[in-house]
Amino acid sequence: MGPQEKSSQDKRLTPSNQIILGGVQRAGQRLRMEEVMVASPGAFQVRLKIVCSSLCHSDVTFWHLPALFPMIFGHEAFGVVESVGEGVEEVSPGDLVVPSFLGNCGDCTECRSERTNLCDGAAIHNFLGVSSFAEYTVVDVSQVTLVDPAIPPEKACLLSCGVSTGVGAAWKVAAVEQGSSVAVFGLGPWVVEGARLRGASTIIGIDLNPEKLDIGKKLGLTDFINPKDIGDRPLSEVIVEMTDGGADYCFECIGLASLVSEAFASSRKGWGKTIILGVEMRGEPFSISSAEIMQGKTVTGSVFGGIKAKRDIPILVKQYLDKELRLDEFITHELGFQDINKAFDLLVQGKSIRCIVWMDR
Amino acid sequence: MGPQEKSSQDKRLTPSNQIILGGVQRAGQRLRMEEVMVASPGAFQVRLKIVCSSLCHSDVTFWHLPALFPMIFGHEAFGVVESVGEGVEEVSPGDLVVPSFLGNCGDCTECRSERTNLCDGAAIHNFLGVSSFAEYTVVDVSQVTLVDPAIPPEKACLLSCGVSTGVGAAWKVAAVEQGSSVAVFGLGPWVVEGARLRGASTIIGIDLNPEKLDIGKKLGLTDFINPKDIGDRPLSEVIVEMTDGGADYCFECIGLASLVSEAFASSRKGWGKTIILGVEMRGEPFSISSAEIMQGKTVTGSVFGGIKAKRDIPILVKQYLDKELRLDEFITHELGFQDINKAFDLLVQGKSIRCIVWMDR
Ligand SMILES: [Zn+2]
Ligand SMILES: [Zn+2]
Ligand SMILES: [Zn+2]
Ligand SMILES: [Zn+2]
Repeated sequence: MGPQEKSSQDKRLTPSNQIILGGVQRAGQRLRMEEVMVASPGAFQVRLKIVCSSLCHSDVTFWHLPALFPMIFGHEAFGVVESVGEGVEEVSPGDLVVPSFLGNCGDCTECRSERTNLCDGAAIHNFLGVSSFAEYTVVDVSQVTLVDPAIPPEKACLLSCGVSTGVGAAWKVAAVEQGSSVAVFGLGPWVVEGARLRGASTIIGIDLNPEKLDIGKKLGLTDFINPKDIGDRPLSEVIVEMTDGGADYCFECIGLASLVSEAFASSRKGWGKTIILGVEMRGEPFSISSAEIMQGKTVTGSVFGGIKAKRDIPILVKQYLDKELRLDEFITHELGFQDINKAFDLLVQGKSIRCIVWMDR
Repeated sequence: MGPQEKSSQDKRLTPSNQIILGGVQRAGQRLRMEEVMVASPGAFQVRLKIVCSSLCHSDVTFWHLPALFPMIFGHEAFGVVESVGEGVEEVSPGDLVVPSFLGNCGDCTECRSERTNLCDGAAIHNFLGVSSFAEYTVVDVSQVTLVDPAIPPEKACLLSCGVSTGVGAAWKVAAVEQGSSVAVFGLGPWVVEGARLRGASTIIGIDLNPEKLDIGKKLGLTDFINPKDIGDRPLSEVIVEMTDGGADYCFECIGLASLVSEAFASSRKGWGKTIILGVEMRGEPFSISSAEIMQGKTVTGSVFGGIKAKRDIPILVKQYLDKELRLDEFITHELGFQDINKAFDLLVQGKSIRCIVWMDR
């Protein structure tokens, strides 16, 4: 049940409607505003009033894919609980929450395991996408995390997907160690921030976009490589040389098979770990040298940076409030809801890191 | 400097010669006995009198490869220190030792790290192959581990390569957990033993050779799949079904790219680990599904099961003496040195697990 579905049971909303953005009928089409009815929260569901959203690369990815259209976008958001369905005890109307596309029911084998964040609660309740480019949205209770009201909405919003994924990849998936070397392929700024938080002493950013260098430097990047500047030399050769044997941790943030192989080749013999965060997902498998993996190298992947929303997002909020985790640096643009297509343009053109889209502006 | 090299400085051996087996001039040729001079141990080197050797799959692999010929085979062995070169303080003539192809100098960055066993001491001393199919051989002091004389030679011999590699893969590389599920592709019996020692509750063996089932069962195999018996169904589908979602740990013991992909597909979403032990190494890269690795799966490789010889072999010896680690079960044949070609035949035909070759018989 998505918010675009009509519901006669709707009682609370006045004038009983909502404005939804993301009424895209075809892949790649510009988003347009649509007025549709919002569903009431069913059992174990929560209806949120979205305060702000921000555009994430996977919104753009799915926007380009001829997948399930029509669809509503947006999954990185901050909201207020407007109403709750039957059986919901964890949150009440007025609570401030961060929704997440990956649930954390707390009950399934996966949620009870320390080894994964891939909640299987989907099988139990009615798992929904977040669809935050809308005034209201309905999500499963497993998908909302209560946050300390001291954190500003636009900062909390970032923890809903991007920052958690990148910081989590360094923290939960790689478990980057003090003094280690890190290479970030397709500069994910939050991976840089995560590596810095974990005490990495060398953080190399690799990106075709030189503008990423500035944000990277602010976050603690120690070196930057633009693949265009190294001529015919393989990227891995340059990185192995810079790190005297290879980086301890290589993060691939794009999802390109060729870049995964290059990241793997750049990782250190003995214990180098390659962590795949990419979401482009063209379905292309990637290729790994068997001789190289026998040297003690590892390749691993994750969704949402191994973050269990309800357990870990409050920790990140606290780190922000304690001035350890930086979030302000990621917000490069802010727009009103009516200008959302501009937010897409900025991201696609590589001009923004995060563009906050305020629902009430 | 190998034992086939002539040395006029040789003083201790009488009549100053040795019989070497493994005088292979061409790949795949049957081994023949040759009488050659043995070198004296140089600085940081140790000369061993080999008591027994056993044939390992990698002997067969390298025997088939048009690599460095002529060469002397044998790297899984047990011996007595006969003489030592300058600077050797760790062992003295008469000491019982297990040689290992991978050194453990104790001094290099790698040896001092807990994260790898890939000793880089090779760069410091004169790293040599073991070449144990000979009455005497010379190795670097970083390649010998003193063992408790209570362990019989033919049992200690197995710790020199195969058992350490397989048990180490389950112990050091995978860190198999109590109650977990394990699938062993290309049934490496010592991986089964390692998994049992670590408390795995499901251990599935996959092999085309039905004779492996018997040895596997003795070691604690709970299930056996012969790929010939499952028709058109992919192996991974069968294993995912048997383990209700995939095995926690998948070990690939052959080194075939296609089997690596199948092992990976058989591993559990969320935390499944695929560990590559294969040594066939045709140089073929393997292919991994990007969508699947994003589900939290991991692929990793290692040499010598992550075992640091001097630290870990004594632990394995103690486990054997304490009747925890089983070694007797692996010895299926014993032969005299003159019958070494028969030992090759038995292994190639899949009839032996380990065939002990006694030097004095
Ligand atoms: Zn769950
Ligand atoms: Zn996202
Ligand atoms: Zn071996
Ligand atoms: Zn070393």
